[in-house]
Amino acid sequence: MRPRRKIGIIAGGGLLPRLAADTALEQGTNIFVIVLDGHGDPSDFADVDHAVCRLGAVGTILTKLHAANVEDVCMIGTVRRPSLAQLRPDARALGFIARYGFSGLGDDALLRSVGDILSREGMRIIGVQDIVGGILLNTGPIGDRAPSSEALSDIERGFGVARQLGLADVGQSVVVQQGVVLAVEAIEGTDRLIRRVGDLVFPGRGPILVKACKPQQDNRLDLPTIGSTTLESAVAAGFDGIAAEAGRTLVADIDALRTKADESGLFVYGIDGSKDLKSSAKGRRQ
Amino acid sequence: MRPRRKIGIIAGGGLLPRLAADTALEQGTNIFVIVLDGHGDPSDFADVDHAVCRLGAVGTILTKLHAANVEDVCMIGTVRRPSLAQLRPDARALGFIARYGFSGLGDDALLRSVGDILSREGMRIIGVQDIVGGILLNTGPIGDRAPSSEALSDIERGFGVARQLGLADVGQSVVVQQGVVLAVEAIEGTDRLIRRVGDLVFPGRGPILVKACKPQQDNRLDLPTIGSTTLESAVAAGFDGIAAEAGRTLVADIDALRTKADESGLFVYGIDGSKDLKSSAKGRRQ
Repeated sequence: MRPRRKIGIIAGGGLLPRLAADTALEQGTNIFVIVLDGHGDPSDFADVDHAVCRLGAVGTILTKLHAANVEDVCMIGTVRRPSLAQLRPDARALGFIARYGFSGLGDDALLRSVGDILSREGMRIIGVQDIVGGILLNTGPIGDRAPSSEALSDIERGFGVARQLGLADVGQSVVVQQGVVLAVEAIEGTDRLIRRVGDLVFPGRGPILVKACKPQQDNRLDLPTIGSTTLESAVAAGFDGIAAEAGRTLVADIDALRTKADESGLFVYGIDGSKDLKSSAKGRRQ
Repeated sequence: MRPRRKIGIIAGGGLLPRLAADTALEQGTNIFVIVLDGHGDPSDFADVDHAVCRLGAVGTILTKLHAANVEDVCMIGTVRRPSLAQLRPDARALGFIARYGFSGLGDDALLRSVGDILSREGMRIIGVQDIVGGILLNTGPIGDRAPSSEALSDIERGFGVARQLGLADVGQSVVVQQGVVLAVEAIEGTDRLIRRVGDLVFPGRGPILVKACKPQQDNRLDLPTIGSTTLESAVAAGFDGIAAEAGRTLVADIDALRTKADESGLFVYGIDGSKDLKSSAKGRRQ
């Protein structure tokens, strides 16, 4: 990795923004953090150079990034997509909306447009995986348990549906049980998806959460994430396992995830998106 | 419509099975009803020739249909898809499952397979619209209110996503608000979809329920349905309107729906799936 003068981190919620900040600092890279008001937590960044900005205050965000001499920008963490009214767009954001539209833009199109703006301002978009090594899910099972042949069929069905959804720029996650698609994610987020499945579950072999990256998605932006919270929700809802696309899914703390998976008896499985699932089931343990 | 000797009605839940039975009887057609145990209500058919059968008892269903000399069969009403364990398949059902598989079959593929079995037994599958005239939604608004231009954009976005979902043989319905896909239906059913959207709703222009037929769907089987219950749920959840594909959506009682739409101020709109929505917005009032 080449040394960087300064990385800007645009921080939403969750653990990943602070992990990115810590890793960059450990590597001796200067950082400047924009905490997105209502999405990220400013107290997480009390000890580093930061500012709190509204998502709609695009002009302010750009001005602050420039003033901090930021070269590379990493947008990371959860952001609940606002309505146009909640966004309260400033002049720059309005110009952006006039150019790209707002209505009908999915998350992915919106993020790509933001990336486009930052590029035109001379900044480079990087992914959190360009800062934090080993954060992407590998192929095959994590921990002791591997999915059964029936579970692999469910994963295959879920992966197909999740990709189809992704093509329409809707959600990234689906829940499949015994061949049936129980639930499909839109903007509610994965934890709520898992929770609402509770009373749709059949007797017998449990449901599986399947996450797929949108096929057209820019890998530097908004990759699917799995972590201990996902696993805890899945355990509580009686799931059999979790599967997500290898190489395109972020795992903040793989050791913690492996320990929890082994304790709970759930499988966590990295899907090789380029292969038939059953033939790649013997993928190495992570 | 040619006179029929006898129609078999395989009845799930809701009002449509009884409506089909009544209409056939009014037309002087003999009927025999199979009420699906746990899905349809046998007391609705106490006064007509009927039997109650489990969905998994395919052999019994076929035997009873043959014994009743049924020629045409209409499968109508809501059926919550069972797990394989809940289905308790008999020998005929098991043969069917061995032939077509169970895991990974979506609703549409499952229904088409059932239709295939009935055909091979010499019966003909008919749609409820072949019994009850005027039951399909027309293009354009029902009642006084028409969707705004912004609402038509939302309908267009929702329709695209719903078709994409349909291609994957998942749900038929999505909820869109201000360009954002709030929620996507899998097996929970439309009323639960609408209810769970409640706390995802943004301030401002309200959400719209959009229903689309699966592009590959057999029009004689499992067409989307809208009715007074759908509208009441949508009103309670603060929706702005409902849109569904014209010619491929069943409306049990269009007069009741029109009255309720006018009372509540919601629009109900029939989408012309073959046209650009904004140019077809001036469709006639139904």
